[in-house]
Amino acid sequence: MSNYVEMWKELGMDLETHDALCQVLPTAFGDMYLSQENRPEGMGFWDFVVSEIHGIRPSELIEAQKNGQKVFGTFCVYVPDEVVLAANGIVTGLCGGSQFWVPGGEKVLPKSTCPLIKASVGARLERTCPFFRIADMYVGETTCDGKKKAWEILGQDVPMHIMDMPQMKRPQDIEKWADEIKIFAKVVEDFTGNAITPEKLSEGIHVINERRKALKRVYDARKSKNIPISGKDALLMMQIAFFDDPVRCAEMANKLADELEQRNKDNVSVFPAGTKRILVTGTPMAIPNWKLHHLIETSGAAVVCEETCTGTRYFENLVDETKTTLEEQYAAIADRYMGINCACFTPNSGRVDDILRLAKEYDVDGVIDVNLKFCCLYDTEGYTVEKAMKDAGIPVLGIETDYTDEDAEQLRTRIEAFVEMLG
Amino acid sequence: MSNYVEMWKELGMDLETHDALCQVLPTAFGDMYLSQENRPEGMGFWDFVVSEIHGIRPSELIEAQKNGQKVFGTFCVYVPDEVVLAANGIVTGLCGGSQFWVPGGEKVLPKSTCPLIKASVGARLERTCPFFRIADMYVGETTCDGKKKAWEILGQDVPMHIMDMPQMKRPQDIEKWADEIKIFAKVVEDFTGNAITPEKLSEGIHVINERRKALKRVYDARKSKNIPISGKDALLMMQIAFFDDPVRCAEMANKLADELEQRNKDNVSVFPAGTKRILVTGTPMAIPNWKLHHLIETSGAAVVCEETCTGTRYFENLVDETKTTLEEQYAAIADRYMGINCACFTPNSGRVDDILRLAKEYDVDGVIDVNLKFCCLYDTEGYTVEKAMKDAGIPVLGIETDYTDEDAEQLRTRIEAFVEMLG
Ligand code: SF4
Ligand code: SF4
Ligand code: SF4
Ligand code: SF4
Repeated sequence: MSNYVEMWKELGMDLETHDALCQVLPTAFGDMYLSQENRPEGMGFWDFVVSEIHGIRPSELIEAQKNGQKVFGTFCVYVPDEVVLAANGIVTGLCGGSQFWVPGGEKVLPKSTCPLIKASVGARLERTCPFFRIADMYVGETTCDGKKKAWEILGQDVPMHIMDMPQMKRPQDIEKWADEIKIFAKVVEDFTGNAITPEKLSEGIHVINERRKALKRVYDARKSKNIPISGKDALLMMQIAFFDDPVRCAEMANKLADELEQRNKDNVSVFPAGTKRILVTGTPMAIPNWKLHHLIETSGAAVVCEETCTGTRYFENLVDETKTTLEEQYAAIADRYMGINCACFTPNSGRVDDILRLAKEYDVDGVIDVNLKFCCLYDTEGYTVEKAMKDAGIPVLGIETDYTDEDAEQLRTRIEAFVEMLG
Repeated sequence: MSNYVEMWKELGMDLETHDALCQVLPTAFGDMYLSQENRPEGMGFWDFVVSEIHGIRPSELIEAQKNGQKVFGTFCVYVPDEVVLAANGIVTGLCGGSQFWVPGGEKVLPKSTCPLIKASVGARLERTCPFFRIADMYVGETTCDGKKKAWEILGQDVPMHIMDMPQMKRPQDIEKWADEIKIFAKVVEDFTGNAITPEKLSEGIHVINERRKALKRVYDARKSKNIPISGKDALLMMQIAFFDDPVRCAEMANKLADELEQRNKDNVSVFPAGTKRILVTGTPMAIPNWKLHHLIETSGAAVVCEETCTGTRYFENLVDETKTTLEEQYAAIADRYMGINCACFTPNSGRVDDILRLAKEYDVDGVIDVNLKFCCLYDTEGYTVEKAMKDAGIPVLGIETDYTDEDAEQLRTRIEAFVEMLG
């Protein structure tokens, strides 16, 4: 990625520290990804993106900025991309998925903060991620305690807008979310200088729905008895969806889906027959957090679905495209987003329903419920999830982990025992 | 307290386990409280209440229930007592302050949950606290992650109403809180069978304002150069305010304030001249959590004010009593409550302003910012608080602790060093 050094310099990045990251990532990726056998050809696109992760998309974003477009950095799947697109803005995810950034976050945050938040804050403060440098505005939300407080530290030297999430899902809460979306739309209009019209918003809604449908096609292909793609590869596609242009993302995902559907016809599997099928549920896995998937898929099982924000929560349910006034469109957007079942809500019984449904749809042998250390929300909800799985007779393993490799061998032992037990 | 055994039995309590609690509390109280010298006579009331803590007030509540009154158990100072009083209901605090209840909570909650929540859940599930048995309805709120999720476990076998706190403080959020208060009022009306009229609500507002004024008088007396009351004693008064009848609470606090004001005229102090004055800020201290105050006041310093929910956040600011319609009254109540600066809000800059103001008003030598282990909100905000204190030239010590005694000696060493440094 050395031909991007000038760009990184202009972004005010800490080049020396960043170099260290650039050196470890390809090795990790090679070990975990390129060693897989019989990968779908369609993954070539994502392999390429990873190989240029801090170069190719950042340079596109900078180009777009030169043409007057604004880049909005987000941290949660509740923030509606549609609205940003409608004002000719660009959205990029900013969640940190590497231990590399954690110590930087720990300089200002308690150690007992979830690694995702620590990594995000570290990536910002240490200036080692181009996306954090490029984003013209950060968009936060009031989902969890750690993020609520992190915004106060993150927002000190970058324009920051915060959306107040209702914490329940009564009819008035969905209305409140629609109001928040309207407020956000106004901020986006002012910041980009572009008015949001019903036509523009329709377009935005359509583009994001198409991305959802394409990603869902890939997931649907994973329901097949053969396993046409590894969980790791599917996860990579999802992780990069947060950063990529949504039209290209849909195009590439559709291409991959074509290939997977053909594989299903031909009964091609990337795992031996009889490999146990795992549904992973829980906290998001931001790039390059491939740890758990790698452990599972090198312990005799395959991940066939993720009930996470880097999984089904990102693409399930579409925004109603039949609405023609802004008022109705914002309501439709609110409706779709409030259908996401994150543990930040009380109660959140819809999530258990989702997991039970997905376990059936993807014909899984077991559920692994994963929690990022110090995520109080998913950790506590794990109690309810595990209880519901046991009641339904679905084997379940609760796991808590962070971005370090320290617990890898211990986790492997537990996962292997779990998979064995499924036999 | 043995003459209450029949009552506890009827409440379905676990008597054997409860006995263990009844045995340790008097010793702890004797060691920490009764050993103090020259205590105000007015403290006799609270000493008596503690000596009968699981007997006298519970039996009053049961008596009231027999007369048709309903008891509402609350966990946060944002829940407006006024509304409950207006429907002839009774409010009792339910926050757990003892390590005794923590293991019970840990059976269903992650260990990395704040001890206050673990103790509250443990007290409920293990049936070792009469107040948890007596309350006819629990009232939760969506302030922090741990509580949001705990309601789902706590509310399984008791009527539970949850108020959705906005997480920001824009004008529309204050309106939203007024709406939540109206919804709560409706629930209270239905549950008690009593209509809330403007007259009734006026009365409720007045009673709670009088309690606020009385508690504030005690605090105001602590601003004096002499120190008329220990921090420990003031804390005890505050802790019991959450459980007691509000009229009696005001009466007793006013009596104590009379005595303290006289002490101030007579220049009576419970600490030697020159004792360093400490402002404690941070997480609430539910009864019987006296740990930090005891450590500070046996390390050569005195606590002269608490910027906590068992301190100034409980009584500062009054509800406007001039409103005459329910609509206006609910708005006035929302206004007053949204003036509380809890770390659950983003941003929460008002809290730093409060601390700076209190440090001045109470003429403190230093600030001790305390965090209950695993409270992500106050822990993270501690960074901002400490920074602000340093900028203002006010010595500050950040402390994290739980309900165990394991860290007591280590904390003592740090506190002593801090107090020494103030010299
Ligand atoms: S887990 Fe919840 S808070 Fe985190 S990105 Fe997903 S929806 Fe947002
Ligand atoms: S994993 Fe949990 S603590 Fe971390 S950002 Fe997401 S919701 Fe917050
Ligand atoms: S600290 Fe915040 S959440 Fe806890 S009781 Fe106080 S106001 Fe409520
Ligand atoms: S101390 Fe913190 S974590 Fe505990 S109940 Fe209060 S706000 Fe929640």
